[in-house]
Amino acid sequence: MAGFKHLVIVKFKEGTAAADMLKGMEKLVSEIDAVKSFEWGQDIESEEMLRQGFTHAFLMTFDSKEDYTAFVGHPSHVEFSATFSTAIDKVVLLDFPCVVAKGSA
Amino acid sequence: MAGFKHLVIVKFKEGTAAADMLKGMEKLVSEIDAVKSFEWGQDIESEEMLRQGFTHAFLMTFDSKEDYTAFVGHPSHVEFSATFSTAIDKVVLLDFPCVVAKGSA
Repeated sequence: MAGFKHLVIVKFKEGTAAADMLKGMEKLVSEIDAVKSFEWGQDIESEEMLRQGFTHAFLMTFDSKEDYTAFVGHPSHVEFSATFSTAIDKVVLLDFPCVVAKGSA
Repeated sequence: MAGFKHLVIVKFKEGTAAADMLKGMEKLVSEIDAVKSFEWGQDIESEEMLRQGFTHAFLMTFDSKEDYTAFVGHPSHVEFSATFSTAIDKVVLLDFPCVVAKGSA
C-alpha cells in the first residue's frame, strides 16, 4: 500500500509488557480514521548484530502527509505517545512518502 | 499485505549515490520471484533526534519465512548485499511475520 508511512522500530525496556503496548496502539489506530492500515511484527530471524537490540516494528499508512500530521496532533495520539515513550529503551522513527517498486500498491 | 517481512533501515555513507543503490535493489527484487512486494521511502518528516541519522527504509514482503530464507541465500542477493554493505554507515534489519491489525491484508 502506497501513501504516507509512519515507521517505528523499538526496543522495549526490560519488564515492559509489549502486549499491553500493542493493545494501546490497536485501540489508538481503531479510533483514528486517518490511519488506513496498521501492521506490526516482532523480529524472529535477524542476527543480533544486525538488529542491534531492536525487536518490534510498527508501520502505519496514511493517504497523505496531511493525514499523518493530523494523526500526530490528535489528542489520543499525544496521550498514547506519552505512555509509549516511558516503555521504550531505544526507538527510531521514519516518516516517508512510500514508493511501491514491486507488488500491489 | 501480511506474510513475512524483511525491513532494512539505513544511513548511507556520505557520498553514496542512494539512487544507484536503489536501482540495484529494484533489479534484485525484479529478478527474484519470492519477493512479492518491495516498498521503500526516504524520511522527510521525522525529527533528527528520533531518526538518529537513518534516512531510508526498505520493506520486502514474502509469502512465508521459507521464501525469505530462499531469498537470503539467492546468489543475486548475496552479491548485492556485499555491494550494499560497503555503502552503509548504519543499518538495522528486522525480519518478522507480519500482523495486519488494521486495513487490508
